[in-house]
Amino acid sequence: MIRASAEVNMGNLCECLGNFFGRQKNTNVRVSLPAVCFIWQIAMIVLFGIFIRYDEESDVKKWLEHKKSANISSNIENDFYFRYPSFQDVHVMIFVGFGFLMTFLKRYSFSGVGFNFLIAAFGLQWALLMQGWFHSLDPVTGTISIGIESLINADFCCAGSLIAMGALLGKVSPVQLMVVTLFGVTLFAVEEYIILDLLHCRDAGGSMVIHAFGGYYGLAISWVLYRPKLHQSKSLNGSVYHSDMFAMIGTLFLWMFWPSFNSAITDHGDGQPRAAINTYLALASSVLTAVAISSMSQKKGKLDMVHIQNATLAGGVAMGTAAEFMITPYGSLIVGFCCGIISTFGYLFVTPFLEKTLKLQDTCGIHNLHAVPGMLGGFVGAIVAAFANEDVYGKEGLKHVFDFEGDFANRTPGTQGGFQAAGTCVAIAFGLVGGGVVGLILRFPIWGDPADDNCFDDDVYWEVPEEEEIIPPVLEYNNHMIHKHQDISESNFSVEQS
Amino acid sequence: MIRASAEVNMGNLCECLGNFFGRQKNTNVRVSLPAVCFIWQIAMIVLFGIFIRYDEESDVKKWLEHKKSANISSNIENDFYFRYPSFQDVHVMIFVGFGFLMTFLKRYSFSGVGFNFLIAAFGLQWALLMQGWFHSLDPVTGTISIGIESLINADFCCAGSLIAMGALLGKVSPVQLMVVTLFGVTLFAVEEYIILDLLHCRDAGGSMVIHAFGGYYGLAISWVLYRPKLHQSKSLNGSVYHSDMFAMIGTLFLWMFWPSFNSAITDHGDGQPRAAINTYLALASSVLTAVAISSMSQKKGKLDMVHIQNATLAGGVAMGTAAEFMITPYGSLIVGFCCGIISTFGYLFVTPFLEKTLKLQDTCGIHNLHAVPGMLGGFVGAIVAAFANEDVYGKEGLKHVFDFEGDFANRTPGTQGGFQAAGTCVAIAFGLVGGGVVGLILRFPIWGDPADDNCFDDDVYWEVPEEEEIIPPVLEYNNHMIHKHQDISESNFSVEQS
Amino acid sequence: MIRASAEVNMGNLCECLGNFFGRQKNTNVRVSLPAVCFIWQIAMIVLFGIFIRYDEESDVKKWLEHKKSANISSNIENDFYFRYPSFQDVHVMIFVGFGFLMTFLKRYSFSGVGFNFLIAAFGLQWALLMQGWFHSLDPVTGTISIGIESLINADFCCAGSLIAMGALLGKVSPVQLMVVTLFGVTLFAVEEYIILDLLHCRDAGGSMVIHAFGGYYGLAISWVLYRPKLHQSKSLNGSVYHSDMFAMIGTLFLWMFWPSFNSAITDHGDGQPRAAINTYLALASSVLTAVAISSMSQKKGKLDMVHIQNATLAGGVAMGTAAEFMITPYGSLIVGFCCGIISTFGYLFVTPFLEKTLKLQDTCGIHNLHAVPGMLGGFVGAIVAAFANEDVYGKEGLKHVFDFEGDFANRTPGTQGGFQAAGTCVAIAFGLVGGGVVGLILRFPIWGDPADDNCFDDDVYWEVPEEEEIIPPVLEYNNHMIHKHQDISESNFSVEQS
Repeated sequence: MIRASAEVNMGNLCECLGNFFGRQKNTNVRVSLPAVCFIWQIAMIVLFGIFIRYDEESDVKKWLEHKKSANISSNIENDFYFRYPSFQDVHVMIFVGFGFLMTFLKRYSFSGVGFNFLIAAFGLQWALLMQGWFHSLDPVTGTISIGIESLINADFCCAGSLIAMGALLGKVSPVQLMVVTLFGVTLFAVEEYIILDLLHCRDAGGSMVIHAFGGYYGLAISWVLYRPKLHQSKSLNGSVYHSDMFAMIGTLFLWMFWPSFNSAITDHGDGQPRAAINTYLALASSVLTAVAISSMSQKKGKLDMVHIQNATLAGGVAMGTAAEFMITPYGSLIVGFCCGIISTFGYLFVTPFLEKTLKLQDTCGIHNLHAVPGMLGGFVGAIVAAFANEDVYGKEGLKHVFDFEGDFANRTPGTQGGFQAAGTCVAIAFGLVGGGVVGLILRFPIWGDPADDNCFDDDVYWEVPEEEEIIPPVLEYNNHMIHKHQDISESNFSVEQS
Repeated sequence: MIRASAEVNMGNLCECLGNFFGRQKNTNVRVSLPAVCFIWQIAMIVLFGIFIRYDEESDVKKWLEHKKSANISSNIENDFYFRYPSFQDVHVMIFVGFGFLMTFLKRYSFSGVGFNFLIAAFGLQWALLMQGWFHSLDPVTGTISIGIESLINADFCCAGSLIAMGALLGKVSPVQLMVVTLFGVTLFAVEEYIILDLLHCRDAGGSMVIHAFGGYYGLAISWVLYRPKLHQSKSLNGSVYHSDMFAMIGTLFLWMFWPSFNSAITDHGDGQPRAAINTYLALASSVLTAVAISSMSQKKGKLDMVHIQNATLAGGVAMGTAAEFMITPYGSLIVGFCCGIISTFGYLFVTPFLEKTLKLQDTCGIHNLHAVPGMLGGFVGAIVAAFANEDVYGKEGLKHVFDFEGDFANRTPGTQGGFQAAGTCVAIAFGLVGGGVVGLILRFPIWGDPADDNCFDDDVYWEVPEEEEIIPPVLEYNNHMIHKHQDISESNFSVEQS
Repeated sequence: MIRASAEVNMGNLCECLGNFFGRQKNTNVRVSLPAVCFIWQIAMIVLFGIFIRYDEESDVKKWLEHKKSANISSNIENDFYFRYPSFQDVHVMIFVGFGFLMTFLKRYSFSGVGFNFLIAAFGLQWALLMQGWFHSLDPVTGTISIGIESLINADFCCAGSLIAMGALLGKVSPVQLMVVTLFGVTLFAVEEYIILDLLHCRDAGGSMVIHAFGGYYGLAISWVLYRPKLHQSKSLNGSVYHSDMFAMIGTLFLWMFWPSFNSAITDHGDGQPRAAINTYLALASSVLTAVAISSMSQKKGKLDMVHIQNATLAGGVAMGTAAEFMITPYGSLIVGFCCGIISTFGYLFVTPFLEKTLKLQDTCGIHNLHAVPGMLGGFVGAIVAAFANEDVYGKEGLKHVFDFEGDFANRTPGTQGGFQAAGTCVAIAFGLVGGGVVGLILRFPIWGDPADDNCFDDDVYWEVPEEEEIIPPVLEYNNHMIHKHQDISESNFSVEQS
């Protein structure tokens, strides 16, 4: 109310001054955003027309043939019934989880949830193509067959770019985010191909391919896009009471459904429940240590919403690789225990340190929630893999879990551990190098990004509803003095309407 | 705060003036609302006692017999395990999706989510009866057997009336909404019987029977209930920042779970994954074109929350019929592409046009989100059906997908296409005629609807928590002058408490 | 804004006065909260290391052996595929449902959702151990095997303590809530062992073991912790518009997923759909009667959000025992009908009465939502069990549903009904006695609970984001007078920044 009218005046003032000194950037995306959306969407349609087909579980002709040839007695054997509930949970994490987690800023909630929506909707289409080309292109027909598992993988692939968005939140335009996603999905498909197919790593929940990659990708972009005068937007770079509540919706849906995330594409049978149980335990453990460190760090032991919203999730990130292994229930608790601590410490000390010394501005602190726990998760996976043995897994089970078949039939758990560690490094390298290049591309002055004093503000890219304003008190007082004969209710009426 | 006290005075003033000029309507529902709830609920209990029984999948005796007679080896073959996850997704769409989508108004969020809750809870009971009578009444025992699929269908049936509520939002009383639901569910069951059973159309996701019917039903009612002086409530017919965020919860849960909506009652096996994939793709495509048109339409390319909240869903509506067909992945993208554009254009141009020329007030713009995309979805389904052939579906598959069995064994895809188109027209006709009649019923002055200057206000039907008020600044100033000896904190205390 | 600055001054004033009169309690939890979190979490890790193992459905070696020995042909027979979707729904109810339901207070939303998060994350670990020791300790290996059903049961077990938290909301410290959970989970495991194992009751949805126990447990604690001067915090013991909306998120996710709650651990096959259908119907019926009574009770028939948020759920609570029985669809409607009325009457008359005469302060009214409907649900279950017969269930079905096997092979339905009633009494007794003892423990002055004038305030335990303040109007006016040369926009700037 009072604030609103003040903002209007402030806004005009800023605009004048900005134009005068020539430092006001052009944030008009009326041409670029529609152009990007239309052209890329049309490209998707054309490419889907050329390449994408239903797989044998979702094509009526192929399914009926497949049922006969594979002697499948019941429709319940369709992969849909194994994976669809997990797919929907992952879908909720991508759109509500990531989306609402980024609504914590006081005047950037529309952008947080809205741009997340936009880039995920684009990214999943591009991911179906990119992942299809790398993983399931039929050499005979030249087509890609998609099913429910493809949709899960496409959602996973988007997650990498959404994580990167967390570092950039409030400082880039939607067009830039589309570019981040285009390259992010492309890089993801390549590193995933190298890590999963060439190095033959296991990474069902994506500690390496999703979180470590996405985290370092976002950090590298943000580092290249460093804004020395970002403090000019300081007043908007914070939360208000209700925006923190909206962010908790994101946190909780991520936290609750993370067991589905890590188990969505693990093996049918024992693999899915094991991954779910391990993730469930690690997450629970993270909550307690995040609360403990948060309370220790503040005067009078007060908790900080930033830690509760983010560090409680670190256990899920760190279990992305090891969840499907026989890490044991108490092993999962230990991983969650450590990552809850590390992540909260990151928010307390590392993010401010990085900003000060490395000139790295990381709005959501993805360094502490994705980059580091993802990297740790990769190494935890490597260690657990290296210590796998037939006593615990059984002879058949060891083959089954690590997929020691075909070219990799002779690989030992020890070797596998080494490759897992190498995979983690590949993911980080792709993130850092790819992010650096994408950051340079984003520095061209054509993308409509906001000026340093205009960041974290929905008003740049959204029609924000006007709050009910009032006449500033002083003016109203004067009015009242002039029209003394007016009755109180009428005076109040002017308060309401002005 | 300031607004609150102003409102109180405003409210008193309005009430006085209203009473004086005799145009204040009686919005007291203290007798009518409890009466409707109690009597109808008791009627439900009696009718359920007479008609409703568990089906053979949920009755312990029948299930054990059925397992033996049908030689079912595993409990997993129970339909529950095929459909329950989709049912729960649909259930979330009905109560959180539709409910929160209607919370966007600044002071009508309680009613949006609360009345949606009330009428859906009544509607689903009445739907179980109505749909049971028309579709599954056992001629021997005179009873209806219900299972999980019945619950899904009951939720679907409610959706028609909830869509209609979107057009009426803010302008009708809860008693009127109950009447809209009573007739809406009844009309739904009849048109569904004609379309699905007599015309033998396929409409698994309800483009025709749910969206086209519900959309035109609501529009017709709203047209009959035209309020020429609705502009008197203009100040409340808009959103504030946080109400738009609540509405995004509704949007996202609708968007994410729409693949479940369109696949919930499709065939076991290939039918469910295909419907989910097609809907997933159409929705993604809608997001990009809705964003593009929204950005193009505004100065500086700013996005409008109304479009993001609504038009992004148009692809799901339009795939309601064709999702289970072999429309191909790129076909789904094209449908979403077009409907995202059409729906956004609708919000920009058609809704204002309808209001001005047709005297049609459509609060949520259901014309653009349900009526038109639903109608288009019906025709898309007709076209896709007409072009179905054995090359794509296989001989067995064609029978399977279109259910060419029994009386309809000789129907060709071309004929089926014609019947699908006819079904769409039936749905629209039922919506328009039924809505017109129900609108006339609702014009009786007994339903407790608000006056034109009292619309869009929760305060009419809800105990709204008082915001912490303050003394209007002027009065406070005067007080301060009088009691100059009081210290600041005490003065502030009066600010707090008054 | 104005309120904020007033609060600051008020806060200072209170603090001074409080310190002066020595009634300000020490709410510093900087040592106790981290200590409890760390020590208990480490204890969990140690105990999990000693006791907890994967069960045969989630251990790769055991599953492969089990498949061979039990001749299981498909991975879909793994219990994961029967129960995981229901588990995730229950998980959402525990964290989002209970969490957001407790966000209705105007300045206690952080604590409502945050403390719920903390204690559920601890409680589920402790529950896995306690329930394991009582129900599934392997006498040979001395270990507990956990699977998906264990996770559901652990979530259920937490629910008891979360219900108790509802009575205490706003009046206790997070450390006290951890203690409530530690004892609550312990008591739960014992009473559950007595009721389900020794008395051989059926209670799949926990009317007795969860709701009656949890409700009376919380009420007894609250009674012991009676605060005679709680009215000093009266101004914060209420909702604002948006906090009521957040609470509706909790209500709806509880309401929608309650069918999953009551069916999550019922028998494979017919048991799960029957429990889901019965719960779905009872909940729908509750909504209508809650609305009816709410409307009848208020001037002009206005609805009260408290009733809509809570009493609509009573039908789900009351079906916790009987949902898996053949209660018939209309029987479910009747249960919901009655409980919606009883619960709403409770909010209107019983809670105020209890506070006045019994000195029982029940913030969320758990007496009306959990204690009484849970108790009624227990007796409804007893009655339905007592009237069970072979005509309805079939001979095999009767054994199947009531598990009349082993030691209990000769039990009759009539006897079973008696034991069900006895079980309800056991649950209530455990709640009352256990709660009394825990209440006494919580009265030690070491737990950091707030003073009577400091309740219902997040600021005690959370870093609450500062709202944008303004200079109180009077001061600003004076400022303006002094600096008359300043232009308006600059004056507004001071409004913005101060």
